[in-house]
Amino acid sequence: MTGMVEQESTGAAEDGARATLGVGMVGHAFMGQAHSQAWRVAPRFFDLPVEPRMAVVAGRRAAAVEEAARRWGWAESETDWRKLLVRDDVQLVDVCTPGDTHAEIAIAALEHGKHVLCEKPLANSVEEAEQMAAAAADAAERGVMAMVGFTYRRVPAIALARELVAEGRIGTVRHVRAQYLQDWIADEDAPLSWRLDKQKAGSGALGDIGAHVVDLAQHVTGERVTGVAGLLETFVDERPLPADGGALRGTASSGRGPVTVDDAAVFLGRLSGGGLATFEATRFAWGRKNAIRLEVNGSRGSLAFDFEDMNVLHYYDATEDPRLAGFRRVLVTEPDHPYVGAWWPAGHGLGYEHGFVHQAVDLVRAIAAGTQPEPSFADGLQVQRVLAAVERSAADRSTWTTVEES
Amino acid sequence: MTGMVEQESTGAAEDGARATLGVGMVGHAFMGQAHSQAWRVAPRFFDLPVEPRMAVVAGRRAAAVEEAARRWGWAESETDWRKLLVRDDVQLVDVCTPGDTHAEIAIAALEHGKHVLCEKPLANSVEEAEQMAAAAADAAERGVMAMVGFTYRRVPAIALARELVAEGRIGTVRHVRAQYLQDWIADEDAPLSWRLDKQKAGSGALGDIGAHVVDLAQHVTGERVTGVAGLLETFVDERPLPADGGALRGTASSGRGPVTVDDAAVFLGRLSGGGLATFEATRFAWGRKNAIRLEVNGSRGSLAFDFEDMNVLHYYDATEDPRLAGFRRVLVTEPDHPYVGAWWPAGHGLGYEHGFVHQAVDLVRAIAAGTQPEPSFADGLQVQRVLAAVERSAADRSTWTTVEES
Amino acid sequence: MTGMVEQESTGAAEDGARATLGVGMVGHAFMGQAHSQAWRVAPRFFDLPVEPRMAVVAGRRAAAVEEAARRWGWAESETDWRKLLVRDDVQLVDVCTPGDTHAEIAIAALEHGKHVLCEKPLANSVEEAEQMAAAAADAAERGVMAMVGFTYRRVPAIALARELVAEGRIGTVRHVRAQYLQDWIADEDAPLSWRLDKQKAGSGALGDIGAHVVDLAQHVTGERVTGVAGLLETFVDERPLPADGGALRGTASSGRGPVTVDDAAVFLGRLSGGGLATFEATRFAWGRKNAIRLEVNGSRGSLAFDFEDMNVLHYYDATEDPRLAGFRRVLVTEPDHPYVGAWWPAGHGLGYEHGFVHQAVDLVRAIAAGTQPEPSFADGLQVQRVLAAVERSAADRSTWTTVEES
Amino acid sequence: MTGMVEQESTGAAEDGARATLGVGMVGHAFMGQAHSQAWRVAPRFFDLPVEPRMAVVAGRRAAAVEEAARRWGWAESETDWRKLLVRDDVQLVDVCTPGDTHAEIAIAALEHGKHVLCEKPLANSVEEAEQMAAAAADAAERGVMAMVGFTYRRVPAIALARELVAEGRIGTVRHVRAQYLQDWIADEDAPLSWRLDKQKAGSGALGDIGAHVVDLAQHVTGERVTGVAGLLETFVDERPLPADGGALRGTASSGRGPVTVDDAAVFLGRLSGGGLATFEATRFAWGRKNAIRLEVNGSRGSLAFDFEDMNVLHYYDATEDPRLAGFRRVLVTEPDHPYVGAWWPAGHGLGYEHGFVHQAVDLVRAIAAGTQPEPSFADGLQVQRVLAAVERSAADRSTWTTVEES
Repeated sequence: MTGMVEQESTGAAEDGARATLGVGMVGHAFMGQAHSQAWRVAPRFFDLPVEPRMAVVAGRRAAAVEEAARRWGWAESETDWRKLLVRDDVQLVDVCTPGDTHAEIAIAALEHGKHVLCEKPLANSVEEAEQMAAAAADAAERGVMAMVGFTYRRVPAIALARELVAEGRIGTVRHVRAQYLQDWIADEDAPLSWRLDKQKAGSGALGDIGAHVVDLAQHVTGERVTGVAGLLETFVDERPLPADGGALRGTASSGRGPVTVDDAAVFLGRLSGGGLATFEATRFAWGRKNAIRLEVNGSRGSLAFDFEDMNVLHYYDATEDPRLAGFRRVLVTEPDHPYVGAWWPAGHGLGYEHGFVHQAVDLVRAIAAGTQPEPSFADGLQVQRVLAAVERSAADRSTWTTVEES
Repeated sequence: MTGMVEQESTGAAEDGARATLGVGMVGHAFMGQAHSQAWRVAPRFFDLPVEPRMAVVAGRRAAAVEEAARRWGWAESETDWRKLLVRDDVQLVDVCTPGDTHAEIAIAALEHGKHVLCEKPLANSVEEAEQMAAAAADAAERGVMAMVGFTYRRVPAIALARELVAEGRIGTVRHVRAQYLQDWIADEDAPLSWRLDKQKAGSGALGDIGAHVVDLAQHVTGERVTGVAGLLETFVDERPLPADGGALRGTASSGRGPVTVDDAAVFLGRLSGGGLATFEATRFAWGRKNAIRLEVNGSRGSLAFDFEDMNVLHYYDATEDPRLAGFRRVLVTEPDHPYVGAWWPAGHGLGYEHGFVHQAVDLVRAIAAGTQPEPSFADGLQVQRVLAAVERSAADRSTWTTVEES
Repeated sequence: MTGMVEQESTGAAEDGARATLGVGMVGHAFMGQAHSQAWRVAPRFFDLPVEPRMAVVAGRRAAAVEEAARRWGWAESETDWRKLLVRDDVQLVDVCTPGDTHAEIAIAALEHGKHVLCEKPLANSVEEAEQMAAAAADAAERGVMAMVGFTYRRVPAIALARELVAEGRIGTVRHVRAQYLQDWIADEDAPLSWRLDKQKAGSGALGDIGAHVVDLAQHVTGERVTGVAGLLETFVDERPLPADGGALRGTASSGRGPVTVDDAAVFLGRLSGGGLATFEATRFAWGRKNAIRLEVNGSRGSLAFDFEDMNVLHYYDATEDPRLAGFRRVLVTEPDHPYVGAWWPAGHGLGYEHGFVHQAVDLVRAIAAGTQPEPSFADGLQVQRVLAAVERSAADRSTWTTVEES
Repeated sequence: MTGMVEQESTGAAEDGARATLGVGMVGHAFMGQAHSQAWRVAPRFFDLPVEPRMAVVAGRRAAAVEEAARRWGWAESETDWRKLLVRDDVQLVDVCTPGDTHAEIAIAALEHGKHVLCEKPLANSVEEAEQMAAAAADAAERGVMAMVGFTYRRVPAIALARELVAEGRIGTVRHVRAQYLQDWIADEDAPLSWRLDKQKAGSGALGDIGAHVVDLAQHVTGERVTGVAGLLETFVDERPLPADGGALRGTASSGRGPVTVDDAAVFLGRLSGGGLATFEATRFAWGRKNAIRLEVNGSRGSLAFDFEDMNVLHYYDATEDPRLAGFRRVLVTEPDHPYVGAWWPAGHGLGYEHGFVHQAVDLVRAIAAGTQPEPSFADGLQVQRVLAAVERSAADRSTWTTVEES
């Protein structure tokens, strides 16, 4: 295996005149669709050192995975993800399954010398995430790379926000307020899904969407959350079974089943630079569909973002004459903005899936260059530790809880 | 004294054909200016059962208070506020001084049979606030009324929000997020002021502006905050003395003095109906000038408000067809909106000081009707207890702290 | 009279230690209320060289004008406006009547040596407006001043916009788009009012609200509209009589009467500097309550304003790095913004009537200084000429029509 | 040829188990890139009756077209577009060239029995557009379809707007205000391009972007513009030659060349239902990058859209209680919204190119069903006639000009 890795240190196989990177994807639901689109589109708009090749998709049910392969444009399908690990035409395994299977698949893939892209949250427990980070560290020494899919980092407005903070434009960070607001189960009669089952999903709003805003807050500020005080809540603890009769664990004969994860999470945090942060993740905010909001106030300025207007970053420069100062609505569609130059003229905005395209681009480039793609599994583990600290705090009267360090 | 109260059960003195209510105001800085405008304007736009009369303003420095009287239109001035308590032409004492003097003035006024309007926060400590609430309860039995000045309750959009919640339009409250964001000391070289001195101000952002959003959250939802987990921070602990050389306590010879209050406060809360709340009060949010933001998500809909666009309430009705649903930008300038009918045609918005006018109107009407004006001193005390719980929690590793009940 | 004027060149009468300016107001409906508030409030927030005194209000019906005097705080009332012209305690006549009486009252007042503030539109015809402008020019030579009430000029955001253009911050003006959108008669069953009667009102949306945006476009850019192409429309030509049975001219026995003015006006214009302008004035834009919108694009930047968010000016600086450029939402509530320093701290916005206060302030200061207040009657006449050109164009197949010059 | 058409009445060739539609694209600049993405992505998200196959792209320069084929994923390339007309693997010709070549290519393709998608504006003159519409009518009788690419019709918010009007939700249309604002040549030193050359582009802002808003206004309202009064302007009549030294017609030795089209167009219009419309198209609106704005006011409600926030439609329902009424910010990302169900969950917005995907979907479905796709060439011709009327009016002192009917 070492030989293979050395020979293919870029993760690329020669295919005629042009190197390709064979991708094998595991899972083909919502995330599988988004990732498929990314692999298909990335090489059309970006200059890539190697061309991703949509080699094979794996899923448990033969008919469904065959249909997914046809629909999303994968050359082949498999019903056993382990087959991907031994295929020569697969250099990268893309893990799009629920969180309870991430560790097993990702670790096995890395051990087989496959690069890995793994959806967030990295795992359903800190323990699993630690094992994954360890496996990724081992693999990296052999030139095999792993990345976790915090895709919102690749929204151009978010990437620009990070640049502005890094350039010192807002100075020392004083405040972060980060919210992820949805309403998809605000209706008390919305049916159960695997995302409401602790065993499958690991966590509810906290792990599913809270993870994103923890990552964004840290990514944009370049700081870490060092401690938290949290509160979790399950507003609706029993729901109707889904219409398709999917037998979920613990379902009562009444046709209803228990919700075993949190519906909402709120927590305070302290940043490594001394700033204060407030976080909120909920699926009960009627009218907010996918409102990922991030506001950062620093000693020299402020930034604000809302995914419901995703092509815009608001920026306040406190060094300006107050007479002319105001939050600028920067339409992040200029050629000089991150990722944007590859797309359309100014004012022609991007959509949700473009973040996945950018993620694929950054990953392919890192693999080809032999550098560590970001966010790494270690980054994913660190987010997991923040979430675990929130859970511990919530279980202990919101008492301040230090985030474990590696 | 009892005789006077009975004789003037409306608090009004006959003055020709029209009853008047003599007002004596103590303090004449920012709040004094706003209250003066309220007393002057209220009877011009609203039908009042008695007409407020701007009888006398009190302040310590003769020249300044005389100038204030002339400028703001008070008939006379006094340098000793105690004089107001014994004047027959004063039926109401309006307390606009810093918080450390509220208890003494308000209690004395109530004891002298004067109705009292007291600026918020009610007092600098829970103990003082308790004494004030007790005095107000006693006075109420004698028909003498007391009210605390949470003026933002009277912004029409906020009053409408409360109506909509009370009508059940958003159902059970799940989430409140309440923020009061300013930037007036975000500059580290902004000078010291009495508002940064614990002895004078009692508290920093928490008591000065956090009090407002605690009151608004409770007022709009009709619920109480029952417990909190909080974090306080002083980002800049020493500042230059003000240019006018005002000698503040503990100032160093270096021309700088200590900041002895919090610069920012963040806290989680639980509402009496089971909902979750997040609160934030800061003076370090560059670009946010007076951003009082309140969002409430319920089981049937949502509401959102930002004082920087104060004539607007955003309302989401979850019972509508999702195809047509969206936050409605209700311009709260219709004749049927609270307070609005007395002013201008639709679309002709109101400003900051109109809330003070409405406060004066509601107070005068309650006094004339012999009913308890809201918010009462008991309401002010309850807000104080929430703030005290935040301080205790912050001093005890953010541990969950129950708000004391009366 | 000359003697009086010389003796009182500031228009002020000595009243003890402080000079006052006696105001006599004619008319006491909507505009009368707004003007009353202005005279009452102006000296409380602004340092004025002379103090306005609300001496007398005139109206035709005794009971109504007496009630208005009491309500709005005028010392006396009269049923004949001519009485005001001969009262020694009146130095300024404030004309708040419908447009068909402006010329008669204003000219008579000027001839009697009274300064005049006249509501817009200056008159119902260009001919009358010319007579008024001539009378004002004569009076000015005798130190008697006249001003027309385009009050929106005094909204701080508009005043700031004018400053920015004058400073060259947006360069050469390329485009103006100016709209005044209301919906108060969008309902076809909304009743008739004098504003829909050509004889009383002179014009419909064009003269009532279109006049404002023509004035604003010219005021902010510092340019003149030199030619126009227009289109007028009356969507609903008959309406129910008002419930109070007020007998309007030409009403049918059916309980309905004719609408004799335009419901909406749209027109193109050319500015004196070569830029293009589009104008729209309508009362049929459902959901737009008082949406006065002005956008100006120049060779170096842009400005945008909407009265529905009246404390905000949006400013785009094209000289900035495109990566950071965006429309700035300037909250026009800073001490350095026009008029704002006299009011509240940053972020504490103003409302509709504050423009009237600023108008009173500017007028009083000009009178005291013996300088011509703006906008002058000549300015009002010029706006009238633009409107007349629109009417001529609309009557002649929208053919380009040059605005008459003086 | 007839035989082929009959045999392939769906425009589809059998390819194994699945029918395909071979596409040949002419031109590969900005529009070619957008169309390529559409052909690639459409079958991945939408169920199509036949699968588009990216057969061949044509361009004049061999190296460039080869690179485009490789980059955008076309199977082959040609340097002579006429080759496409005789290829059996091409059933549809997609015309993405500048306007001066549209007529020749499209007519030839239709005559060869190829379906045609032609970019807007349909042609550079009404005469050419008439020939194209005639050719399309002939072809339609033979089952060969033609469509013009007004892609913004397929933005979900615009499609929803049309549905709401058609359902009668805003009643009779009173007003349309339609603007297309850009700033890409607001800088006077921006270089010449073929879009500023009358011979190539036919028209400037009017034809390039004004065409879009004329189409949108008509599409959303379901009405036609029957007459116009217009004004055109070229603010900057000479510009530097582009850096790549491309020799444009009539360029001076000085390194500068003439701008021979309009920079901006403003015009008034009358709708077939009697409503008024204002239009504006400019490339000189600093800060507006691609601001396609459409507001429609009807007798029962209003709609507003701005492409800079393209996933949102604002809707005002005038039948609601005014106390609760307001423009609703409908996030057009619900499964029931037009086109949206095929994409992501609610709140996960779309971007610019999705409109092209939807266009491809609608075209393929119409071809397969043998129905006329919309907008037809006749629709494109009608838009052309509106633009021509604007030009005639502008050349004749803005005099009202009736739009020619077919």
